[in-house]
Amino acid sequence: MAKLRYGMVGGGPGSFIGGAHRTAIRIADSAEIVAGSFSRDYEKTKATGAELGIKPERCYATYTEMAKAESEREDGIDFVVVVTPNNSHYAACKAFLEHGINVVCDKPLALNIPQAEELVALAEEKKVLFMVTYVYTGHVTAKYIREYIRNGAIGEVRTVMSEYPQGWLYNENDHGGKQGEWRCDPERSGRVNCLGDLGTHAENLVHMMTGLTIKRILARMDVVVPNRVLDDNDQVLIEYSNGATGMQWCSQFAIGHDNSLKVRIYGSKGTIIWEQEASEHFTLVQENGISQTIKRGYSNNIAQDDDHNAKDDPAAKYVRLPAEHNEGYLEAMANLYQSYISCVCAKKEGTFTEDMIDFPTVEDGCNSVKFVSACLDSNDNGNIWVDIK
Amino acid sequence: MAKLRYGMVGGGPGSFIGGAHRTAIRIADSAEIVAGSFSRDYEKTKATGAELGIKPERCYATYTEMAKAESEREDGIDFVVVVTPNNSHYAACKAFLEHGINVVCDKPLALNIPQAEELVALAEEKKVLFMVTYVYTGHVTAKYIREYIRNGAIGEVRTVMSEYPQGWLYNENDHGGKQGEWRCDPERSGRVNCLGDLGTHAENLVHMMTGLTIKRILARMDVVVPNRVLDDNDQVLIEYSNGATGMQWCSQFAIGHDNSLKVRIYGSKGTIIWEQEASEHFTLVQENGISQTIKRGYSNNIAQDDDHNAKDDPAAKYVRLPAEHNEGYLEAMANLYQSYISCVCAKKEGTFTEDMIDFPTVEDGCNSVKFVSACLDSNDNGNIWVDIK
Amino acid sequence: MAKLRYGMVGGGPGSFIGGAHRTAIRIADSAEIVAGSFSRDYEKTKATGAELGIKPERCYATYTEMAKAESEREDGIDFVVVVTPNNSHYAACKAFLEHGINVVCDKPLALNIPQAEELVALAEEKKVLFMVTYVYTGHVTAKYIREYIRNGAIGEVRTVMSEYPQGWLYNENDHGGKQGEWRCDPERSGRVNCLGDLGTHAENLVHMMTGLTIKRILARMDVVVPNRVLDDNDQVLIEYSNGATGMQWCSQFAIGHDNSLKVRIYGSKGTIIWEQEASEHFTLVQENGISQTIKRGYSNNIAQDDDHNAKDDPAAKYVRLPAEHNEGYLEAMANLYQSYISCVCAKKEGTFTEDMIDFPTVEDGCNSVKFVSACLDSNDNGNIWVDIK
Amino acid sequence: MAKLRYGMVGGGPGSFIGGAHRTAIRIADSAEIVAGSFSRDYEKTKATGAELGIKPERCYATYTEMAKAESEREDGIDFVVVVTPNNSHYAACKAFLEHGINVVCDKPLALNIPQAEELVALAEEKKVLFMVTYVYTGHVTAKYIREYIRNGAIGEVRTVMSEYPQGWLYNENDHGGKQGEWRCDPERSGRVNCLGDLGTHAENLVHMMTGLTIKRILARMDVVVPNRVLDDNDQVLIEYSNGATGMQWCSQFAIGHDNSLKVRIYGSKGTIIWEQEASEHFTLVQENGISQTIKRGYSNNIAQDDDHNAKDDPAAKYVRLPAEHNEGYLEAMANLYQSYISCVCAKKEGTFTEDMIDFPTVEDGCNSVKFVSACLDSNDNGNIWVDIK
Repeated sequence: MAKLRYGMVGGGPGSFIGGAHRTAIRIADSAEIVAGSFSRDYEKTKATGAELGIKPERCYATYTEMAKAESEREDGIDFVVVVTPNNSHYAACKAFLEHGINVVCDKPLALNIPQAEELVALAEEKKVLFMVTYVYTGHVTAKYIREYIRNGAIGEVRTVMSEYPQGWLYNENDHGGKQGEWRCDPERSGRVNCLGDLGTHAENLVHMMTGLTIKRILARMDVVVPNRVLDDNDQVLIEYSNGATGMQWCSQFAIGHDNSLKVRIYGSKGTIIWEQEASEHFTLVQENGISQTIKRGYSNNIAQDDDHNAKDDPAAKYVRLPAEHNEGYLEAMANLYQSYISCVCAKKEGTFTEDMIDFPTVEDGCNSVKFVSACLDSNDNGNIWVDIK
Repeated sequence: MAKLRYGMVGGGPGSFIGGAHRTAIRIADSAEIVAGSFSRDYEKTKATGAELGIKPERCYATYTEMAKAESEREDGIDFVVVVTPNNSHYAACKAFLEHGINVVCDKPLALNIPQAEELVALAEEKKVLFMVTYVYTGHVTAKYIREYIRNGAIGEVRTVMSEYPQGWLYNENDHGGKQGEWRCDPERSGRVNCLGDLGTHAENLVHMMTGLTIKRILARMDVVVPNRVLDDNDQVLIEYSNGATGMQWCSQFAIGHDNSLKVRIYGSKGTIIWEQEASEHFTLVQENGISQTIKRGYSNNIAQDDDHNAKDDPAAKYVRLPAEHNEGYLEAMANLYQSYISCVCAKKEGTFTEDMIDFPTVEDGCNSVKFVSACLDSNDNGNIWVDIK
Repeated sequence: MAKLRYGMVGGGPGSFIGGAHRTAIRIADSAEIVAGSFSRDYEKTKATGAELGIKPERCYATYTEMAKAESEREDGIDFVVVVTPNNSHYAACKAFLEHGINVVCDKPLALNIPQAEELVALAEEKKVLFMVTYVYTGHVTAKYIREYIRNGAIGEVRTVMSEYPQGWLYNENDHGGKQGEWRCDPERSGRVNCLGDLGTHAENLVHMMTGLTIKRILARMDVVVPNRVLDDNDQVLIEYSNGATGMQWCSQFAIGHDNSLKVRIYGSKGTIIWEQEASEHFTLVQENGISQTIKRGYSNNIAQDDDHNAKDDPAAKYVRLPAEHNEGYLEAMANLYQSYISCVCAKKEGTFTEDMIDFPTVEDGCNSVKFVSACLDSNDNGNIWVDIK
Repeated sequence: MAKLRYGMVGGGPGSFIGGAHRTAIRIADSAEIVAGSFSRDYEKTKATGAELGIKPERCYATYTEMAKAESEREDGIDFVVVVTPNNSHYAACKAFLEHGINVVCDKPLALNIPQAEELVALAEEKKVLFMVTYVYTGHVTAKYIREYIRNGAIGEVRTVMSEYPQGWLYNENDHGGKQGEWRCDPERSGRVNCLGDLGTHAENLVHMMTGLTIKRILARMDVVVPNRVLDDNDQVLIEYSNGATGMQWCSQFAIGHDNSLKVRIYGSKGTIIWEQEASEHFTLVQENGISQTIKRGYSNNIAQDDDHNAKDDPAAKYVRLPAEHNEGYLEAMANLYQSYISCVCAKKEGTFTEDMIDFPTVEDGCNSVKFVSACLDSNDNGNIWVDIK
């Protein structure tokens, strides 16, 4: 398979997430970087470009220029990866969409609902493939869980407990370095910090695993650590459209937690528990009460339908190491890219169909924006129930 | 030390909790049962009495009769243990209080606030010792935690996540046998099921560990399993009087959980995590981010103040087995009785002082009644904030 | 059921294990202490007797005197509990056996094979019930495991990894207080310390769970901590009579381990893992590779034979608390006493049969003595294979 | 930094490990593949080469030809990666060494001591950099442990318990597919299977962490699963040159274990425990008995010497993701390549010094060959002690 060509916006010197995306794509091994606008500072862009072996003429001063130039080249990029600070996601994505270029955007998709809906409409109109990188949905075990729930392993979902605590911002005298500073700064982050950064991962992951959509929420968004302006601890009551309930907690001052995304799904016939920090397996308990640990790499155990007939394993294509040869964060992201890139290839070859999509899309990105918006409304009005539009 | 004499109301044939109390008292080994009114059915009372070696004349048809008779005997009981169904706790306790007899009552103390407050007032007036058996506060590790927090190990408490899920009532066609039936029956349980049975344990334990009191709550009390009338899944937002926040979840349909009471306390300088199912140790994380496992039996580690001066170990008196020779539920209950009985002895000998109390009291019982009442108000009014009186 | 009467030899002031036995018997609640010779010092015996409410005439200066006197009383003891230091187990047991009194003896049964075999023969001759208190075999989960293996859950056993590390004697300048001192002293402990104290628990527990007997061993018994004379770290290769292999490690200087007895049994169709420090459940893995956690209290899951027909649950009689209302060390010991006492009762009533025995016997005690003896031979001869006689 | 050029021998279609090495090198991102002899079948080599984008003239029919041709090119490879089946490691490595080309070889280095020693001598003579890929030594936590032990965190090592059980070959009717077949085949694997595949990882990792070398061993190498010829379960007693003891177990039929490499190191002042399946953290217990969990990414906690002075963090250069954004097997291998490649670069630039080496070398490979050889001698002679030469 010939490799695809991609470009990147953002991800210059000092960016953690830009490097993570590039590494994930190298693991997936089916696209190479050929263009970029890595920084608002053109000198930095050129330096990063040189480091990455990109030709000088494809290092661009602005993403607008890049979108135009790449769309006009015969060997132009097949997709762009947008990893700028949050407040320019919308504009950067829009620039590439307008030129019909496929887009990968780090979350959040946008800072408000109109922007997000505009991107959804534009992606639809331009018929591009648009991925929003909710990394944790790339874990093989998350895909297993989706399959188990679809197959009825836990019956109908009754309540979902999700949480995503971190502790890095607990100290009122330490705003978490460069990254912490912009996250805590309303100028650069808009009206939300913790819930946008962490809560939306939980919101999206629950949706991916269960298929449930949120009907309404009641949120309390607190600013706890002294000297903060934006929320750093959020507690949300959720009602799903099937009548199931939920509860979500996220925090940035929970000492001892580094990245403790956890989802517990309770159904009428069983329970599923998944933890990011031990993402190589998950827990399934069914009606006999025996807790079962299902590992990545044991996928043949799920390859059966309700009548125990053999089925294709939906996650086999992602297994690159045997069970307990641990995969982690980068491999999860690589799984997202693997699906995305194969869809882009298929589109180029005219063989693409919607059911090939196994990555979070622009609609997922838009749903998170609506979730955050509703939480802000609820909190601003004394913690009342607010419908998700 | 001469053994005290006690009587029991309730705890006849088929009662789990009556037997548990008697076993816990045998472990504490400082009181013996000499009287009882074990059942509404006098024949059953006499049978249970015979089994327990109680003299026939001290097997009573009613607790009213028992309270009177025992209070008049020279060798009358030193305290009574009330383990009847919930709806007669109030009346039984009152009967003994009126005769000045010390009382131990299983939770809940009463079904409504006026009853609870009446018992508080009566206990005060009669100067009796009144314990409400929130069993989990008896764990040595819970006492360690109280001491760590008092000593500043985690700074000021910021948020508390507590939960108590169980799964035994998940099945709409199985109401959990005899015990489940009365719990799910409004006639016998009043207006509350799950939150009263489970949520109050969490509420009391957090109070015991942190010293915090609740200012107001916002509760959602759901009836989820088909064929139920009372709540079986409850999610509560909490605000403490120091401004700290909290969140509580309890459930009776969470398959895989048998008795998963868990408390996580996040402070400005550290975190403490305690789980009933692994109550022989707890987790402490301080500012360096290293998770520490503190075991029961290592109490000398906490016997220091902020300046690392040696102090008396506040829980040494309860350690009956070395570390990792596991103690459990019965030993926790025995610890409560050990403190209670030593207070009763001291009172008899005239050496009792308030600071000897290391067990949950009638005030704790009253607080839980108020907590449940506020939750019912909140839920009945569309999940609004309700102040605790 | 009328309570039995028992006496105790040893267990005076400062004894941990004497108090543990008395508490365990109180939990089992079917025997009461009426006689004792608690110390070599008669004054101490009388003081302990007074504390325990024993009549002065049944507090004896020597066990010889006690055995004789009690055997002659109409209301004499039904059994005696021997909890003296190791080097007097043999003589004390013998004294009561000779008077036909049932015996419970703490391990080790004796210091050498001839003594042990003599007690076996004497018990047989006198037709008494003789329990040696390998406490950990009393855990309900250990009984479950025995049943699972009998039912073929893991096929034929192939290898057994057992270990029992502790850390309390790691410090060359601290010999572990009173208890450590006699354990490390060849005068009072004979030729063995760590392997006798810890290794024999592992040896006996594996036998109880699997039914396997040891054919031969190869042992390395090291004296590692400076200033020690007896072994404090032992590593043993084992061959069982069915051809299975095994490996055992025990230690007294393994910092971080307090009481980490652990058994892992690998069979042709599955694996079972049991840990004392989490004895409320065990792990079963079968051919599909999914790790299952089986909890105490879920015994109905094992109540089936190979054809999945319902069977009686062999451990139901020991379940005094629901799942995850933790039982621990004392309850395990109480389970042993529950079986022992019911056998003694049955013997008195003439209804006793051998298959009622669900506790470790004098033969188990003798097997451990042979195991230790073979290990000493192996180690003294350069770590060679030695057959168990 | 300009990327290095590398070639590969082995790693053709169906090879797991070849792909893993290539992915790890892509993660490290400092070398690109430009030449290869991927299979004994030249057509397969050419096909793999085409897939990897290698020019046809650098796809070689034999490694001999490749070594010669590449050594003569101006743009010849900077190093070669040898991932053939075990029995051709020696000859392939030798071919490249003779042409002065740097070598990376998968373990085992060779099938016998003379071959291994010849490679050591040749590498020394040719002054090449030679890495043997004991993957698990690449984990950041393993590097932390080495540093903690060097810094005295656990005092002097007293005993080391290591194990590496797997379960994939438990079934006598299933030899584990293509890989299992050659591992179980003496023609292709020589005299050893399980101990060579698994035991040497444990042997090398203990050496890397502790610095200890083995003085002598006593081994039992069993063939347990029916229809096997080579060892599938090995239990080894170890004596280290400092007098410390050790015990090692490895197995291929331990159902439930996929890749359970685990090392426990007990010292005079503390204990360290590391598990491959949870390699993002390790456990440290010191004299206060409190178990501490040290995470990857918290390296500043170890950056101090005995006097608590700040030091450089020895593993900081490998941290590519924050704590609890899990890294795994591929990242560990990438860490080895990162060090190796930076050494090769430094050598090219004339700045290389020995202390830059932070990867397992040809000496490590040779030590494992000696370890296996001694175990075979011990087992063939009735499980006697055998010195390591």
